[in-house]
Amino acid sequence: MLIKELKVGEEVTSFFLVKAKNIKTSSANKPYIDFTFQDKTGEINAKLWDVKGDIENIYNPGEIVKVLASVTQWQNNLQLKLIKIRKVEPEDNVDYGQYIPVAPLDPETMFNEILFFINKMENRDIKKLTLTLVEESKTKLMYYPAAKSNHHAIKSGLLYHVIRMLRTGEALCSIYKNCNKDLVFAGIILHDIEKLNEMHANEFGIVDEYTKEGQLLGHIIMGIKRIEKTAESLKIDPEISLLMQHMILAHHYEPEFGSPKKPLIPEAELLHHIDMIDARMYDMNKALKDLPEESFSEPIFVLDRRRLYRSKLAVSEEE
Amino acid sequence: MLIKELKVGEEVTSFFLVKAKNIKTSSANKPYIDFTFQDKTGEINAKLWDVKGDIENIYNPGEIVKVLASVTQWQNNLQLKLIKIRKVEPEDNVDYGQYIPVAPLDPETMFNEILFFINKMENRDIKKLTLTLVEESKTKLMYYPAAKSNHHAIKSGLLYHVIRMLRTGEALCSIYKNCNKDLVFAGIILHDIEKLNEMHANEFGIVDEYTKEGQLLGHIIMGIKRIEKTAESLKIDPEISLLMQHMILAHHYEPEFGSPKKPLIPEAELLHHIDMIDARMYDMNKALKDLPEESFSEPIFVLDRRRLYRSKLAVSEEE
Amino acid sequence: MLIKELKVGEEVTSFFLVKAKNIKTSSANKPYIDFTFQDKTGEINAKLWDVKGDIENIYNPGEIVKVLASVTQWQNNLQLKLIKIRKVEPEDNVDYGQYIPVAPLDPETMFNEILFFINKMENRDIKKLTLTLVEESKTKLMYYPAAKSNHHAIKSGLLYHVIRMLRTGEALCSIYKNCNKDLVFAGIILHDIEKLNEMHANEFGIVDEYTKEGQLLGHIIMGIKRIEKTAESLKIDPEISLLMQHMILAHHYEPEFGSPKKPLIPEAELLHHIDMIDARMYDMNKALKDLPEESFSEPIFVLDRRRLYRSKLAVSEEE
Amino acid sequence: MLIKELKVGEEVTSFFLVKAKNIKTSSANKPYIDFTFQDKTGEINAKLWDVKGDIENIYNPGEIVKVLASVTQWQNNLQLKLIKIRKVEPEDNVDYGQYIPVAPLDPETMFNEILFFINKMENRDIKKLTLTLVEESKTKLMYYPAAKSNHHAIKSGLLYHVIRMLRTGEALCSIYKNCNKDLVFAGIILHDIEKLNEMHANEFGIVDEYTKEGQLLGHIIMGIKRIEKTAESLKIDPEISLLMQHMILAHHYEPEFGSPKKPLIPEAELLHHIDMIDARMYDMNKALKDLPEESFSEPIFVLDRRRLYRSKLAVSEEE
Amino acid sequence: MLIKELKVGEEVTSFFLVKAKNIKTSSANKPYIDFTFQDKTGEINAKLWDVKGDIENIYNPGEIVKVLASVTQWQNNLQLKLIKIRKVEPEDNVDYGQYIPVAPLDPETMFNEILFFINKMENRDIKKLTLTLVEESKTKLMYYPAAKSNHHAIKSGLLYHVIRMLRTGEALCSIYKNCNKDLVFAGIILHDIEKLNEMHANEFGIVDEYTKEGQLLGHIIMGIKRIEKTAESLKIDPEISLLMQHMILAHHYEPEFGSPKKPLIPEAELLHHIDMIDARMYDMNKALKDLPEESFSEPIFVLDRRRLYRSKLAVSEEE
Amino acid sequence: MLIKELKVGEEVTSFFLVKAKNIKTSSANKPYIDFTFQDKTGEINAKLWDVKGDIENIYNPGEIVKVLASVTQWQNNLQLKLIKIRKVEPEDNVDYGQYIPVAPLDPETMFNEILFFINKMENRDIKKLTLTLVEESKTKLMYYPAAKSNHHAIKSGLLYHVIRMLRTGEALCSIYKNCNKDLVFAGIILHDIEKLNEMHANEFGIVDEYTKEGQLLGHIIMGIKRIEKTAESLKIDPEISLLMQHMILAHHYEPEFGSPKKPLIPEAELLHHIDMIDARMYDMNKALKDLPEESFSEPIFVLDRRRLYRSKLAVSEEE
Repeated sequence: MLIKELKVGEEVTSFFLVKAKNIKTSSANKPYIDFTFQDKTGEINAKLWDVKGDIENIYNPGEIVKVLASVTQWQNNLQLKLIKIRKVEPEDNVDYGQYIPVAPLDPETMFNEILFFINKMENRDIKKLTLTLVEESKTKLMYYPAAKSNHHAIKSGLLYHVIRMLRTGEALCSIYKNCNKDLVFAGIILHDIEKLNEMHANEFGIVDEYTKEGQLLGHIIMGIKRIEKTAESLKIDPEISLLMQHMILAHHYEPEFGSPKKPLIPEAELLHHIDMIDARMYDMNKALKDLPEESFSEPIFVLDRRRLYRSKLAVSEEE
Repeated sequence: MLIKELKVGEEVTSFFLVKAKNIKTSSANKPYIDFTFQDKTGEINAKLWDVKGDIENIYNPGEIVKVLASVTQWQNNLQLKLIKIRKVEPEDNVDYGQYIPVAPLDPETMFNEILFFINKMENRDIKKLTLTLVEESKTKLMYYPAAKSNHHAIKSGLLYHVIRMLRTGEALCSIYKNCNKDLVFAGIILHDIEKLNEMHANEFGIVDEYTKEGQLLGHIIMGIKRIEKTAESLKIDPEISLLMQHMILAHHYEPEFGSPKKPLIPEAELLHHIDMIDARMYDMNKALKDLPEESFSEPIFVLDRRRLYRSKLAVSEEE
Repeated sequence: MLIKELKVGEEVTSFFLVKAKNIKTSSANKPYIDFTFQDKTGEINAKLWDVKGDIENIYNPGEIVKVLASVTQWQNNLQLKLIKIRKVEPEDNVDYGQYIPVAPLDPETMFNEILFFINKMENRDIKKLTLTLVEESKTKLMYYPAAKSNHHAIKSGLLYHVIRMLRTGEALCSIYKNCNKDLVFAGIILHDIEKLNEMHANEFGIVDEYTKEGQLLGHIIMGIKRIEKTAESLKIDPEISLLMQHMILAHHYEPEFGSPKKPLIPEAELLHHIDMIDARMYDMNKALKDLPEESFSEPIFVLDRRRLYRSKLAVSEEE
Repeated sequence: MLIKELKVGEEVTSFFLVKAKNIKTSSANKPYIDFTFQDKTGEINAKLWDVKGDIENIYNPGEIVKVLASVTQWQNNLQLKLIKIRKVEPEDNVDYGQYIPVAPLDPETMFNEILFFINKMENRDIKKLTLTLVEESKTKLMYYPAAKSNHHAIKSGLLYHVIRMLRTGEALCSIYKNCNKDLVFAGIILHDIEKLNEMHANEFGIVDEYTKEGQLLGHIIMGIKRIEKTAESLKIDPEISLLMQHMILAHHYEPEFGSPKKPLIPEAELLHHIDMIDARMYDMNKALKDLPEESFSEPIFVLDRRRLYRSKLAVSEEE
Repeated sequence: MLIKELKVGEEVTSFFLVKAKNIKTSSANKPYIDFTFQDKTGEINAKLWDVKGDIENIYNPGEIVKVLASVTQWQNNLQLKLIKIRKVEPEDNVDYGQYIPVAPLDPETMFNEILFFINKMENRDIKKLTLTLVEESKTKLMYYPAAKSNHHAIKSGLLYHVIRMLRTGEALCSIYKNCNKDLVFAGIILHDIEKLNEMHANEFGIVDEYTKEGQLLGHIIMGIKRIEKTAESLKIDPEISLLMQHMILAHHYEPEFGSPKKPLIPEAELLHHIDMIDARMYDMNKALKDLPEESFSEPIFVLDRRRLYRSKLAVSEEE
Repeated sequence: MLIKELKVGEEVTSFFLVKAKNIKTSSANKPYIDFTFQDKTGEINAKLWDVKGDIENIYNPGEIVKVLASVTQWQNNLQLKLIKIRKVEPEDNVDYGQYIPVAPLDPETMFNEILFFINKMENRDIKKLTLTLVEESKTKLMYYPAAKSNHHAIKSGLLYHVIRMLRTGEALCSIYKNCNKDLVFAGIILHDIEKLNEMHANEFGIVDEYTKEGQLLGHIIMGIKRIEKTAESLKIDPEISLLMQHMILAHHYEPEFGSPKKPLIPEAELLHHIDMIDARMYDMNKALKDLPEESFSEPIFVLDRRRLYRSKLAVSEEE
């Protein structure tokens, strides 16, 4: 049974991924475990009051557990009271992927959509450069998130981020005729490409750490170097290589966010705004989608601690 | 003959609007007048070496003059050497409008496009509120610029700004499903509506000063008050009135740019970015469109003194 | 017995309001409750070592309890060791108000002082506008605090804040003759008037949350709208309505504190400084009044984490 | 005849102080002099079209001239057209002081008012320290301005600044009982005392430069050192000396304005606000007093380039 | 046995200083103590699982304990599992100094090096002033740290900070000939001299609190006053006294770090950079010296939360 | 005769470089030319009162002129009154280099000193990488300045900047043992290497403009790319290449000055400070060296508009 489908009063048997685990002391002065469980549909709090075994070393985050539990309610939120719990075993045939938040579109489909955009490019050099880099990066691109903990921190999140930006970019280029479409599309596709090497993520799209080069240089500088070298080896027009590098360099816009140069061409300016819109819409949808109407969220760290409002007119996107 | 069509070596007879006039002293120690002339296609420098009459009081900015001149060149720019000059006279039948920069679309057409967007709104209250305010504002809306000297500081510039934002808003709402389209469209249409009363502009869209209320409160606060009162008199759902006011309040995003609250609903977030994109694309196109390829502009004040680059791949939009 | 009167070594029977309650574990590994008790004279820490009953659900914050306790000392602070404790009961006839910090002046007296100031106004429009708004607001004004947790966060705190500001304003206007007294007084009386609708406070002056409009617009914008509408309905001279709105708008002075416009008239400038002085004197007196001479306070959050000093020459105001 | 009394169309004979002088070229291509004249009632522009003699070296700023002139008007401002002009001569018996802006109160009277405040002090050490420093400083205090070009940049401006602050301080101490009056008064009297040695001013209160110590240390540090040494020699209670030094140190409030420590005692906090109020009221009155009603000033540099508004309700103080 | 010499699997008997102590609850729901032990070679975590006696009041920070323990490992760090523990007793003859981090050079040697630098000074006034102040301060200088918790927060840390700065200063003066060596050396020796009176430190160089004058004025202002008075009593050339005071005043460079004036002489500029280099090298060496190669540190608070990198080429200095 | 050697009252015949030229109008209403002349020893103002020929087009900046002039004095500065003037002619055999400010050391000598430092490196990879890049850059390095208008804006200024930094680096590495000398030296030698391609300078070390890549990426990013590619082609240990790139990236320290990452290794930290010291000492020496003792400079733009002080103890370095 999926977390989204639980109802108060039921007793359920199900598998969940342990996202967090805290050992606490009850009012009766006994230790209990306070869990956060997760599947691809959401998260839920769970209490294990009667702990047996090595409390420190069992049911750790990242493991999947099978539980029997009753669904209760506390301060408007559902909660699980655990009756039985055990670790997942091979014969359970559990699909780990069901417990991981993942982009709403299929990676292969998204990758093909990128190829479709590349295919539309008219400038042969931009097309060749973009295609080469995307194909070299395909393996990781299929599952990498777009960030460690902020927007699109989900499996295949980077692909999803790029796809939505491409659609936005296409619409904007039809309105703002002073932008070279090929540059805009290539900028979108490549702007975060070295996030694939700045962070280390596992096959579930979960980032555990930044790489050495990621910490010492960052994905913007790494992306510029990669474009430089690939463009040289492909004998791309140096002006194009330079413009692409400038777009990567300027896409965070403010020096304190990592861009030592501000956009000097309209395509770089547009890239920045498209990136911001996609990130903000994602974060806002995530914060608001499970909130009751006419209520405010908790302060959202990545949104400058704003407390968002879900109005009577609010609509949500399922992702 | 239009400024854009002038060629070195020609002798031309034409009308121009005096945009600036400076009295200087020549190397032969004689006074001369250094003009900037303008028509709807651009600007050009002109020198009147042989001044007759009351040098201080003739040919002032805002007047139209008829000139006979030869077209010369100085440091890559065309220049006029004036042979004859006189003030325009009624019998010249000059159309003043030909000398004023004006939005590339017809005001009536743009106004109708706004009505078309309003007509698509599903929420009756938002529709009624927006329609009422737009109709009340029609007279000024037809010719007001969007600013005194920055983006869209042209006749009917505010209408043009709104139209392009509406088109962008429509495209974005089809991608970002977590935004209520009606709110986004209404926010776009009304976000600067009180610029009509914050600044005083003449029929050519030229702003001479800010109004008293404009200086003491500003168009954001004025817009909120107007929505409040109109919504009350139309008996609009208070939640809708409140959301519309919040969108106006937050659309400059940063407190130091006039928004004491940041966007707390996704529609307000989107409104801000659409506004920024349209202003920036306008300013960048203006700065780049007459620049040679592979050259940099002078520092542009409204773009944080950036020196923009016109690349080999640059495209321009005529406006 | 009041908290201020407790002495080490005594055994007391008294009522207190539970301000905070934390369940902890003793060195003997048993749960105990660590309370903060409050009455109108101050706060004190209390320990309940021998807990009976449902430790999670008894004696919660906001409840009044009757206790038998011995007064001990720990690190220069008095503490209560609880011997007996029970919830208050109806037959105890406890006056809840005795446990709530409250302004040192009677609300009715303060309200009359405001009327007295209004009565002195010479400009009929300012007088009418101010009187109308104050009378409409009287009910809430009698008990609202001036803030949720900062200065004057006490019952009738807003009234007290206004009264002290009025006295200061009167003194300053007699020195700085370039200010219109009526504007200054009206600005003081109305500057925070919509805090009554920005926050929700109970009859004890305790704020539990901000209202929807408070979060989306804030009391400054709400105050401007209210003045606009009231002034219109009273047919007040629009210049006066505008000046009053500007004073409300500018009284926080800095954009990042909520004022998109800085004061453009001397009365607005003065209003800001009077507001600051009153808030700072209140906070400093509160932080210093119970400190020993020649010692420093803890860092005070609302005073930029300054550690205030209580000198040998310090005097305190009881409030 | 005083500048304030001039009327369009009159011909006047009068003395003025040359405040500024610029050599320009007329439209007839001849040099003329553009003056700013000043007396204690104000400033006026004057043109000398027919220049005789060494145009570079005659009628320089700081000199007094006798003129015959007709009063004309240009863009709402009065102007003098000079018919005759000559330098002042000894036998003119001109009182230079009449041409210098000067505080509206007599220095001796103001000095006595300071002594009166000192006399009211109850703490013998504070009284002795303040009196000693004031008496040592009397000579310069009688004519020094409070600043080179900002607020109270007039003869005896520092005394006037202190007097108004003392009156404000007295009023505030009667409302805010948590401040030690003696500390507040002494802080006011001494806060800028070393401006007398930070800047060099002539007998007319005009500052020509900062002193070496003024530039390397500044009046705040210099004031602290002076209090330290005077207090030591008078055997003042060290706590009092320390508190006085802290008040001097903190009175600019923000590090970027010269205060490395923020106020840690309420008297220092109050001193800062009183200082600000007096400076701002002075600057605002100066900017507004000659402005027509319902008009805006030019941007005022010392007031963050605000354009102040003179409302229909504005009152001015003559100073 | 010293902490640096411990190896996994050993059983050791040794003395340690208790640096921190936390009472926690085990998974078996029993209290245990989690210690940080320290000696002059480093720090180690230790667990006491079987607690006897008054758990709150035994083995507190600052005490030395004798333990029997086995050395274990947890997450790459060594840990002690305590078998026996008792308080140090007089007959243990423990040298408290062995447990305190201390500068790597002998205080007397360092003090003599300062004298050596003073002896090289050519300007008699600078020499006399510096020597007098250093000799007056010798007692505290021998053991004071340079800070409460940041760089050189070790016994004799201030001396060590000064010595390294002197060596750097000497090298730089031989390269940058536009600096007066005597001023630079004197500036280095005296720049933090009043830290001796700004903080209260015990004989082990551990700071418990800031003094009253330290909090109200700070060591920069205190240092200026001390130089002023000493220079006056020694009849030092006032220019020299002034330059020395300016160097003290400007050495933190930025107003927000305590310097209201920026360096106006090159010697003051150099002093600032030498101070920064020495502090930063100290903090970086401390953070990196025990880190494995090719790994990153935790975020370091005093280094703007940077996560430092220990490269394959890193070298460390033992201190 | 050199500018430094001129004396009031003399009549001189000499060559000068025209640095600036302004056409002005005399009090007798005639045009004259106001020059700034320059040679390698300094600058001087000169007036040409009697202009013959095409005043706009003769004696322009960048040209060398031969003059006969008398040396006069105005406001403490020497000035030339020109009697004769003509353009330089080939047969004058003028050495243009004598009129250009140039580093005080011979470029070949400085280049050899760099090689000497490279030769001392122990790490073969760092040595090879540095040597390769320096040799590739030798041609431009011999004459390039370190900046367009700030510190070391002189012929061979970049070499001179590097040499002084190397000497400082060597001294600091002998004191701060936690830095790898090879990394520090290589960082110093290469930190600004791409300034050679960021700006375009002529053979006299005068920069006329920034390059396209310089404006779109900047020398930091360009330097990183160059190290990356050179290191790859030389098969340098990737860790070393990465560390070198990090040092380049972080050497401006603050994001707003172009460094998106702060130093994470001590060698990068040291590099930044050495760079700052050398630039600041250069700028301060330049500002102070011709100033009279006990006087203040004008505000120096590159030093945050500080007005530097030349004390009685000041020493200068001739450069």
